[in-house]
Amino acid sequence: MENFTEIAKKAKEASLKLASLNTDTKNKALNKIADSLDKFSKEIFDSNNLDMTEAKKLLESGKINQSVYNRLKLDENKMRDMIQGVRDVAKLDDPIGKILLKRELDNGLILSKISCPIGVLGIIFEARPDVISQICSLAIKSSNAVILKGGKEGVNTNKKIFEIITNALNEIKEFPNHSIEQIFTHEQVADMLKCDEYINLIIPRGGNNLVRYIKENTSIPVLGHASGICHIYVDKTADIDMASRIVVDAKTQYPSACNSVETLLINKNFNKANELLASLQLEEIKLISNPERWDFEYGDKILAYKFVDSIEDAIEHINKYGSGHTDCIITENPENAEKFMNTVDSSGVYWNCSTRFADGFRYGFGAEVGISTNKTHARGPVGLEGLTIYKYRLEGNGQIVDDYVKGKKCFSHKDML
Amino acid sequence: MENFTEIAKKAKEASLKLASLNTDTKNKALNKIADSLDKFSKEIFDSNNLDMTEAKKLLESGKINQSVYNRLKLDENKMRDMIQGVRDVAKLDDPIGKILLKRELDNGLILSKISCPIGVLGIIFEARPDVISQICSLAIKSSNAVILKGGKEGVNTNKKIFEIITNALNEIKEFPNHSIEQIFTHEQVADMLKCDEYINLIIPRGGNNLVRYIKENTSIPVLGHASGICHIYVDKTADIDMASRIVVDAKTQYPSACNSVETLLINKNFNKANELLASLQLEEIKLISNPERWDFEYGDKILAYKFVDSIEDAIEHINKYGSGHTDCIITENPENAEKFMNTVDSSGVYWNCSTRFADGFRYGFGAEVGISTNKTHARGPVGLEGLTIYKYRLEGNGQIVDDYVKGKKCFSHKDML
Repeated sequence: MENFTEIAKKAKEASLKLASLNTDTKNKALNKIADSLDKFSKEIFDSNNLDMTEAKKLLESGKINQSVYNRLKLDENKMRDMIQGVRDVAKLDDPIGKILLKRELDNGLILSKISCPIGVLGIIFEARPDVISQICSLAIKSSNAVILKGGKEGVNTNKKIFEIITNALNEIKEFPNHSIEQIFTHEQVADMLKCDEYINLIIPRGGNNLVRYIKENTSIPVLGHASGICHIYVDKTADIDMASRIVVDAKTQYPSACNSVETLLINKNFNKANELLASLQLEEIKLISNPERWDFEYGDKILAYKFVDSIEDAIEHINKYGSGHTDCIITENPENAEKFMNTVDSSGVYWNCSTRFADGFRYGFGAEVGISTNKTHARGPVGLEGLTIYKYRLEGNGQIVDDYVKGKKCFSHKDML
Repeated sequence: MENFTEIAKKAKEASLKLASLNTDTKNKALNKIADSLDKFSKEIFDSNNLDMTEAKKLLESGKINQSVYNRLKLDENKMRDMIQGVRDVAKLDDPIGKILLKRELDNGLILSKISCPIGVLGIIFEARPDVISQICSLAIKSSNAVILKGGKEGVNTNKKIFEIITNALNEIKEFPNHSIEQIFTHEQVADMLKCDEYINLIIPRGGNNLVRYIKENTSIPVLGHASGICHIYVDKTADIDMASRIVVDAKTQYPSACNSVETLLINKNFNKANELLASLQLEEIKLISNPERWDFEYGDKILAYKFVDSIEDAIEHINKYGSGHTDCIITENPENAEKFMNTVDSSGVYWNCSTRFADGFRYGFGAEVGISTNKTHARGPVGLEGLTIYKYRLEGNGQIVDDYVKGKKCFSHKDML
């Protein structure tokens, strides 16, 4: 097994070359990958079958659960989505090289702020092998190098997809080698978490435990969310039909999604509370009024609920027990809506719509790196822009600072965009 | 001494209130602070004298150096700058509540991306007591709470300034208590570095060792730079007069600044290299051609230099030994300038001007939080914007996701800004 630092160093070198790759080359690489995944899909299915045979044993002996088993399994639909996903990223705007600011500091001294790649991304994912093509395409489009570590249950599928992607990239001669690397062991992951010299951002894709472990064991920035404890607060003036429809959608449309609601807070003066709760039970939502803890993600058709005295109490509850993901108020009172959206400290603050809208595609980003509950860099659903940073270019014709300090020259600070 | 978690919890609660404070209240608070610093400046000088008496002993016994001693000392000029600095921040645009994106997702379903504060900032600074008023004013303007830990040599001055600021804020009744807190011990700092529940961003203001220690000992995001190893590359076609003038400015204008040049790379085919080196020696710059290490920050009128075979070698050297701070090419060849600025992976990439321009005020930001060599969140000179993040507001009238998944409704994704 190759030493992690060597792998990371090569990826870093590749990332420096990727930074100045033009849009056409990146799109050519993406379309080549899509073609190859299509062409070799039978090989991918064969590899996946190997993994599924093992997974079946693990499922029967209780070592993995049905949901992991399902996520490991590739079928025709998932394969088609995988391939289309890569082609869709090719069609997106290039997020690199955008001029974010252009300012004349003085005559002939021009400052520009230009978007550029972050460098090397470390991706640690669990069961879903379709993450590889998704993350690789986002990394390529944003000119970042990437080091992937997949779950061991999908090792054959992961290796095959990785091989197909690498071979496709090798056919594009301008594309730097080692832009995409793979690692396999826990020791290499431990090395990655320590390697702040070469790894610039870590993106975990998986359950709470994985994300929490990574956040606690690295000083490298981590993009992601450990849990999604989303709330809906039904205010005194809520419309009963709307409240019922939204809560049902937020809880049942896809109960295991991170943007599903876990806790319902109802104003004690909302006079149709019983009707609301009854309507939820009709949809087979299990209601819990005294949960052991309020910061629990059920991921199932289970909903904790509580009556609160006021909107202030609801906000306090959310800021205390929430995970800063997505929280919603249902009210006909615009002042209360405003207060809720200003004071709830979450990446998504919603008024009269389902928490399930928290998603990069639904927001119109065209792609989603993940959902972040961070308070720096990128928050909420993260599109390609979340894989970029910027650099400042300053172009002059001999200017020195001493002239400005001594008052011989003055800054003009004229914006040019 | 109060338990750190209690202090942090109060700051967090204050930060939630600060988030919806209006611009007028924040500016009123800032001007009140400036007035109070002015009114009680004699008390600050008295406290500073106490510190300076102790500092003199430390200086004489070699426990601190002259530069720390100088930075501790407050004089009339520094005081005037401190007070003016607070008033200047009051005049800046409010960075909170800016609409960064507004998009119709569908008829009546409106997404907005709004700038908001990060939360609680942990500030750890060394000798300079004037950092307190500067950081507090930036935090107030950006609606963040802040916990300060100053160097022990300035403890009396720090306490006095903190007391004056706190008293001033207490007079503004809308201003939440505990928005600004102070801690004193190493144990509290250790607790702060672990407290990712309440602390959202740590900003160290001090030397390499402090910054490095903090970066290695926390998983909370850190904004700053450990060192400034800046380079100037003199290309084959450089103008000799310009090269000499820029290198002299970048090395001598303020040698201990992080944006001063440390290494000069000269193309071996630049035929006026001897003339250039002689001109630097005339300015009493000590030249070193075989330094023990290339990643060293002299902070003095000392300059390491090396001949390189090509621009590629120069770029490789910079990406290997640089700190990603600010690097400059001097050339009359626009293609080489472009190549250098695209491929050097630093927060500032300069062409024909001094590295000393890397500064928030010179860039026209009106304030500077610090200079960051991070690859996420904020890079280069960081203005008020670096103390903000954003939240997504989604306002609807009953929309649910199921309608879009089932194809009953379609997203329009129409930008409204």
